[in-house]
Amino acid sequence: MTHPRLSLNQATIKYADLATALNVTRDAGYTSIGTWREPVQEVGLARAIELVKASELRVSSHCRGGFFTVPEGGVRRASIDDNRVAIDETAALAAAGAPGSRAALVLVAGGLPDGSRDLAGARERVGDALAELVEHATASGVQLAIEPLHPMYASDRAVVSTLGQALDIAERFPADAVGVVVDTFHVWWDPQLLSQVARAGASGRIANYQVCDWATPLPADVLLARHYPGDGVIDFASITRAVNDAGYAGDIEVEIFNQVVWDTDAAEAAARTATAFDAAVAPYLTGQLHDLEVS
Amino acid sequence: MTHPRLSLNQATIKYADLATALNVTRDAGYTSIGTWREPVQEVGLARAIELVKASELRVSSHCRGGFFTVPEGGVRRASIDDNRVAIDETAALAAAGAPGSRAALVLVAGGLPDGSRDLAGARERVGDALAELVEHATASGVQLAIEPLHPMYASDRAVVSTLGQALDIAERFPADAVGVVVDTFHVWWDPQLLSQVARAGASGRIANYQVCDWATPLPADVLLARHYPGDGVIDFASITRAVNDAGYAGDIEVEIFNQVVWDTDAAEAAARTATAFDAAVAPYLTGQLHDLEVS
Repeated sequence: MTHPRLSLNQATIKYADLATALNVTRDAGYTSIGTWREPVQEVGLARAIELVKASELRVSSHCRGGFFTVPEGGVRRASIDDNRVAIDETAALAAAGAPGSRAALVLVAGGLPDGSRDLAGARERVGDALAELVEHATASGVQLAIEPLHPMYASDRAVVSTLGQALDIAERFPADAVGVVVDTFHVWWDPQLLSQVARAGASGRIANYQVCDWATPLPADVLLARHYPGDGVIDFASITRAVNDAGYAGDIEVEIFNQVVWDTDAAEAAARTATAFDAAVAPYLTGQLHDLEVS
Repeated sequence: MTHPRLSLNQATIKYADLATALNVTRDAGYTSIGTWREPVQEVGLARAIELVKASELRVSSHCRGGFFTVPEGGVRRASIDDNRVAIDETAALAAAGAPGSRAALVLVAGGLPDGSRDLAGARERVGDALAELVEHATASGVQLAIEPLHPMYASDRAVVSTLGQALDIAERFPADAVGVVVDTFHVWWDPQLLSQVARAGASGRIANYQVCDWATPLPADVLLARHYPGDGVIDFASITRAVNDAGYAGDIEVEIFNQVVWDTDAAEAAARTATAFDAAVAPYLTGQLHDLEVS
């Protein structure tokens, strides 16, 4: 049986269009999906809402906004505007999803602007962008979810590299407006991880828990280095217990960027994901969707 | 002119034997070198001492010991014993080097043992190994220098991933016995870097400052991702000022693992290193080798 808290992040079956992804997910016994903007926009938001409603799946998060590090100017304005659209999409998709859906927009901070070495400045601009977006997020009932990315992406993807750093930024804002994502692939190595997970939970800021595994050697394209839970070195027991103990009782997404997984038939990838989750993650969950029942 | 605090880490001219490396370094105007164990052992320690003496170069550090994460047993015993030999080598080479040489043995923690996911246990064993070695290091006048490595190496090279974590371990021991290495490549991304550099300096634990640059995309072998200072995104101004302000006034090593650099003629690589250092690092140094003059 597919675990009741397991959500298939759409990136794991990257080549499926939205309708296919919803069908594959539901047919594999999942009750939840994490959506991505590109396949939603491919069919248009109105049609995406219809499809999500018909699927009767929960929407566990919407990926992804962010890319906040460019200095003031046209590109930054366009990015902020696009994030407002992403907030609207998130609210609409969560409303279309089954009860227990979470209106959480996953944010990737963005890397150093071309030619820049000003890491501190880039990080400051992430907070500045959130300050601009918080009002719209709050009005829309959407939680902006900062995802710290592994430090190997600090230069080109995300200047937010640790959970503690993400929380330092998030805590400038109300918890219902800005939270964080705990993704095992990105944070498993962090010596401060368990205490920062507790901190995130205590302030109600865990917007999403994502699980996939780390293995070496890394592939030539380090963006595609993720594996099914259990196929690498991450200790899902300690991290999952910490997230659990921190009070997170929402859906748990498996999000895998891996060319071999993408080249697998989507239904098979969904089934393998569920099996891997049952073996590597589910044994350490004690929560029973209690926050989903009341939402 | 080659900067008086610049030291060529031997790994930058990896294919040169010890005699060649010393000659290349001196001929390029350096007054300091960071030695590696393999080329020293290739000629034997007695001959290495003669060569270092004849070179009239300072020895800024000896690389490298460590690999402390395997559980108790024959492999661990052999590793501890080998680290005692490395301590002896370090003391002997520093004594053979010109005044201002530093008896600092650079330590790489080691990765997760094969098949293990017990990151916390592996980290604990690093501290255990140091506890075994501290007496011999102290008696030998050698500072063990824990080098935190970039988190992308946490699984297979070094479970010590941040300067703060390295200091948490080091501070269990006297500062003259256990210090840390600040290597820009490994720590540039760390949101806590500047405060941890200050902490390291305040307790006299900066054993070595190493500089090279980070650029993306990473090469297929992420071990070889280092560049000449200035060829990437690292802000050497802020990090060098912090190391400087923390009171570190010793030699500064350039240590580059990069196939293109290794394929360069050693004399040319040494010259390019000096030029890069002058442009990217030297302007932010205010110290004038003051601790070298008194040692």
